[in-house]
Amino acid sequence: MIKVAVVGGTGYTGVELLRLLALHPQVALKIITSRSETGVAVSDMFPNLRGHVDLCFSEPDLANFNECDLVFFATPNGVAMKMVPELLASGIRVIDLAADFRLKSVQSWEQWYGMPHVCEELLAESVYGLPEINREQIKTAKLIANPGCYPTSVQLGFAPLLKNSLVDPGNLIADCKSGVSGAGRKADVAYLQAESTESVKAYAVSGHRHNPEICQGLQTLIPDKVNLTFVPHLMPMVRGIHATLYAKLHKTDIDLQALYETHYQDEPFVDVMPAGSHPETRSVKGSNMCRIALANPADGKTLIVMSVIDNLMKGAAGQAIQNMNIMFGYPETQGLESIALLP
Amino acid sequence: MIKVAVVGGTGYTGVELLRLLALHPQVALKIITSRSETGVAVSDMFPNLRGHVDLCFSEPDLANFNECDLVFFATPNGVAMKMVPELLASGIRVIDLAADFRLKSVQSWEQWYGMPHVCEELLAESVYGLPEINREQIKTAKLIANPGCYPTSVQLGFAPLLKNSLVDPGNLIADCKSGVSGAGRKADVAYLQAESTESVKAYAVSGHRHNPEICQGLQTLIPDKVNLTFVPHLMPMVRGIHATLYAKLHKTDIDLQALYETHYQDEPFVDVMPAGSHPETRSVKGSNMCRIALANPADGKTLIVMSVIDNLMKGAAGQAIQNMNIMFGYPETQGLESIALLP
Amino acid sequence: MIKVAVVGGTGYTGVELLRLLALHPQVALKIITSRSETGVAVSDMFPNLRGHVDLCFSEPDLANFNECDLVFFATPNGVAMKMVPELLASGIRVIDLAADFRLKSVQSWEQWYGMPHVCEELLAESVYGLPEINREQIKTAKLIANPGCYPTSVQLGFAPLLKNSLVDPGNLIADCKSGVSGAGRKADVAYLQAESTESVKAYAVSGHRHNPEICQGLQTLIPDKVNLTFVPHLMPMVRGIHATLYAKLHKTDIDLQALYETHYQDEPFVDVMPAGSHPETRSVKGSNMCRIALANPADGKTLIVMSVIDNLMKGAAGQAIQNMNIMFGYPETQGLESIALLP
Amino acid sequence: MIKVAVVGGTGYTGVELLRLLALHPQVALKIITSRSETGVAVSDMFPNLRGHVDLCFSEPDLANFNECDLVFFATPNGVAMKMVPELLASGIRVIDLAADFRLKSVQSWEQWYGMPHVCEELLAESVYGLPEINREQIKTAKLIANPGCYPTSVQLGFAPLLKNSLVDPGNLIADCKSGVSGAGRKADVAYLQAESTESVKAYAVSGHRHNPEICQGLQTLIPDKVNLTFVPHLMPMVRGIHATLYAKLHKTDIDLQALYETHYQDEPFVDVMPAGSHPETRSVKGSNMCRIALANPADGKTLIVMSVIDNLMKGAAGQAIQNMNIMFGYPETQGLESIALLP
Repeated sequence: MIKVAVVGGTGYTGVELLRLLALHPQVALKIITSRSETGVAVSDMFPNLRGHVDLCFSEPDLANFNECDLVFFATPNGVAMKMVPELLASGIRVIDLAADFRLKSVQSWEQWYGMPHVCEELLAESVYGLPEINREQIKTAKLIANPGCYPTSVQLGFAPLLKNSLVDPGNLIADCKSGVSGAGRKADVAYLQAESTESVKAYAVSGHRHNPEICQGLQTLIPDKVNLTFVPHLMPMVRGIHATLYAKLHKTDIDLQALYETHYQDEPFVDVMPAGSHPETRSVKGSNMCRIALANPADGKTLIVMSVIDNLMKGAAGQAIQNMNIMFGYPETQGLESIALLP
Repeated sequence: MIKVAVVGGTGYTGVELLRLLALHPQVALKIITSRSETGVAVSDMFPNLRGHVDLCFSEPDLANFNECDLVFFATPNGVAMKMVPELLASGIRVIDLAADFRLKSVQSWEQWYGMPHVCEELLAESVYGLPEINREQIKTAKLIANPGCYPTSVQLGFAPLLKNSLVDPGNLIADCKSGVSGAGRKADVAYLQAESTESVKAYAVSGHRHNPEICQGLQTLIPDKVNLTFVPHLMPMVRGIHATLYAKLHKTDIDLQALYETHYQDEPFVDVMPAGSHPETRSVKGSNMCRIALANPADGKTLIVMSVIDNLMKGAAGQAIQNMNIMFGYPETQGLESIALLP
Repeated sequence: MIKVAVVGGTGYTGVELLRLLALHPQVALKIITSRSETGVAVSDMFPNLRGHVDLCFSEPDLANFNECDLVFFATPNGVAMKMVPELLASGIRVIDLAADFRLKSVQSWEQWYGMPHVCEELLAESVYGLPEINREQIKTAKLIANPGCYPTSVQLGFAPLLKNSLVDPGNLIADCKSGVSGAGRKADVAYLQAESTESVKAYAVSGHRHNPEICQGLQTLIPDKVNLTFVPHLMPMVRGIHATLYAKLHKTDIDLQALYETHYQDEPFVDVMPAGSHPETRSVKGSNMCRIALANPADGKTLIVMSVIDNLMKGAAGQAIQNMNIMFGYPETQGLESIALLP
Repeated sequence: MIKVAVVGGTGYTGVELLRLLALHPQVALKIITSRSETGVAVSDMFPNLRGHVDLCFSEPDLANFNECDLVFFATPNGVAMKMVPELLASGIRVIDLAADFRLKSVQSWEQWYGMPHVCEELLAESVYGLPEINREQIKTAKLIANPGCYPTSVQLGFAPLLKNSLVDPGNLIADCKSGVSGAGRKADVAYLQAESTESVKAYAVSGHRHNPEICQGLQTLIPDKVNLTFVPHLMPMVRGIHATLYAKLHKTDIDLQALYETHYQDEPFVDVMPAGSHPETRSVKGSNMCRIALANPADGKTLIVMSVIDNLMKGAAGQAIQNMNIMFGYPETQGLESIALLP
């Protein structure tokens, strides 16, 4: 049983984390902070939590965290880096669901996030929390950089190919489709239902922060230079990411289906679907699963990988719980057994 | 630990029931039948169940049910009544999620369901499975008629008023709004996304089967004749019912908020929200909760009760599990602890 | 050919008005103002208008309006009343799509809109722009108070009953369902797609501004006191209002279907559907039509009227164009011939 | 003024065609056929057409078509080819919105459409009705093969690149997203709202009929062999296609924005948006416009073209009307002036 605090619990990542923590048998949820909502009952803001979470939002105060074993940050980018050093110094472990510790290059981080990084010294120590790639380091990590949603779906889709040097790493395409919850719970005309429903558009085509994060992760798998064309699209739905990946195969006589199945056979949260499948995002809604399928049509040189996750689960809060389980020696699937809600 | 079979597992009620049964710690799911899908893996039809249910659909064969303690019927109306007598004779208990045993009057049933009833002798014995009203009888029931979705939301909303003789029972109005999953998983042009999304309509205004079911239930609470104007509406969403109830108060000096809170204070699945609340259907999505709020505007004579449920949970499969728990002496909330998925 | 200005063209009512004005053969659109967007091309904000409207938003400056014959206000409540007197004094006619001139009682207006009214002297002169009731006065009006969306759907639904004294006016119920575009185009967390889609809720149950507007309108049709229970609900869709109306009939031997058909037989924008119909909001999406159907189930004492409109068309911009046509002697349907988009 | 018949008016393409024909000033709509709905009033099936179309569906009978100048086929594939020869022989012109005459190779057609072609002799004579490429031939055509929805969006997006030999034609990728109306108005569980909403999936990844149609069209623009990886995805919305196209540039020093703007400068229904734009499908909903934008991020070698249309308009019925206008010498935009409905 560990004591846990959540800093910044008013966004979609926050409420999803609270939903999971409230039912986790090894967790005592002690503190939820929000500067703007201090004093408000969590269940007044999120009525689904009525009867499950009876805390009020409080001011973030490091002193109060001393009783805690673990602090989650579900804050905007740039907040965690200001508080993490003191927490670590107090022996408290941290999982940051924002981007503060995801990029190893401080120059790249500052370029993409548009602010100075105030905690450069921890970038090397932090562990990128993608268990399917970094499980061993996560076990002993003090500070986890929880991956972004797109990066999770894309890296899990491309990893077997790059690890086995099967494709041209300089010619990768990721055409990704995300639900609107990925934009967060903030007052912004662009995400009003009357704006975003019944429409599809690409965005950030000229460059998106998740591109360097994906490339950094994939680059650890292969020596040749990784280059990715990444186009995110906004979907008229709430939850879910569908990554459609295109890669140029070096040769066409490999049983890729078998290779993927073997690669992920021991992973509790990656499901390689049978040949011919088309994964639906709804098949993972509310669950921590990533479902993957392959297709290799026509002349067979362009491989298509489809990878779906729930952006708030495997793409955020679910993966954070998975990391927590690994860090504290709990069964990796504990508190993450729920089955996707369908329909 | 009980052994359970599900007859007819290919509809939305069926898949929801499977989702709940797969995770229930006291249930061994043994058989799932479907005439049309015999031999198909359940998880091929419902990919959310991959890794959780590894049964195939089989022919419904009463002989196979002998090992079971309980059989759920998630079939179209008229199927259960043909099989139930033999099951009961074998000592197997039954929960019917269809309408076969909901109405005590065989005449009324035949009028509304348009077929002869072949099992009239069990109508008296069957117990209407609304735990908030019939919990004691459910404990010892052999045959449960699981309530309809609208009837659950409407009866829970009106019950405290009628039980305490506070309103005119001859002048009740229920304006109900339901998501499209209530129409079931059947090929029907009217429920194509291109037909039903981005639109609202009433249906069955001239008369709906759930009206006699609601009236029968409410009539047990008050001697005076109950009369209900019931207008169901189709909502452009998947899950959820919002019942907006109107009743004429006999007097306006009663603290109805306190009365409702007291009435439901021990109920694990009825949440009377604070005065001034507007329950949202999404606050119960995927959960077994019914949330209720009251309003009494203007001259105070017309009381408004808002009652929301997830039609597939408290309105169908969740309530069936609740009934199962009561029948077999398990904690009433077991396997039903999940928190609504929000957003 | 008239010259037209629009004050406040950045909301949903504004863009709908621009869409209609751009194609109206008798209109030269001269000015579109927006304080916050001055200098921005209208088609940059609303890409559907690319190639159809090549104006930029400008500062609202009364001097510039002198060339205009008509000014539409598509502003927040409280803006028009500050500018209208000067416009009228210059001989310019005005159609206000906001609420500034809808209520005849300044006390009631100030109570419901929470601000002092600065133009009380024009309340008597202004004409409530519901053509089906006030067509004659509209013809010569200088100042039109364009009706609210709910009030349009509810008044058109109840009018034949009240005008013919067929129901108890003290016991009316309007259970109304509206799409999210009714909330306007403003940054508000409550109307994010991730908040409002896949959910239904009532709002403002304790009292809504449109109740006094509806009652004022209905009261002109009958001497007995009108009392209305009005419950608006938010629907997970963009456009459309479905008003479900309940009234107590004085007697049950009247052919109400024939009465409604006769009442509206000459109205180009009211369609009384055949007996047994259930109007769908999508059948009027993008059109100026109001479709009405009746039902009189069970004991026949509670009449149900269903009335659907597109809240941005017959409930706002379309009705404003209809009023303009009447005021300037154009065919009432000109520029309003479009057929609802289905699917 | 021409006399027009529609064969098969009960699908989404059919109702959209009727909507456009009903308001076209040069069209007298004489006949609408449907075997299954003979005798039913068109406006009973499509209530948006109440007051605009007062025909009933009739049996398709070639004799009745003699008074017509033009017959549209909005039928399933394989129907038109059986009736077209006789119509042409009678001097009646034909626009087929299905696929019967789209492919010039009968072998390819029979492979992809799974049936024998019974009218091979007309394949050479028929004109592929994409006005931006084939306008001159359309003017004198007797038989138009109206393009598919995906092929329209993809060809308009790639055409300037291939015509100017700027990219590798053997390495094209089209990642396309379509609303559910593209699946047609037929009873199919997969397109129930409860199945397809709030989810995204790819489909037909192993091969889709529109791939050979696209390649045939693009191949007319460039001698080198065209090869296309085409992945269609189902979007949780009704109308709209977003084609995201990827091509490998031969060189990176060309002003592609200017090239596209020049290429399409005289086209009334292609809008090249400013650099940096992200076209939204809703910006063309209900209109005949195709909006295109370009992006060329990172190392500049992979060009991204975004192309959006309304699949029922420029992707079907709107384009058919555009073809009709060209064939009969009417202004090309007549009857197609409507502005996209937004929101």
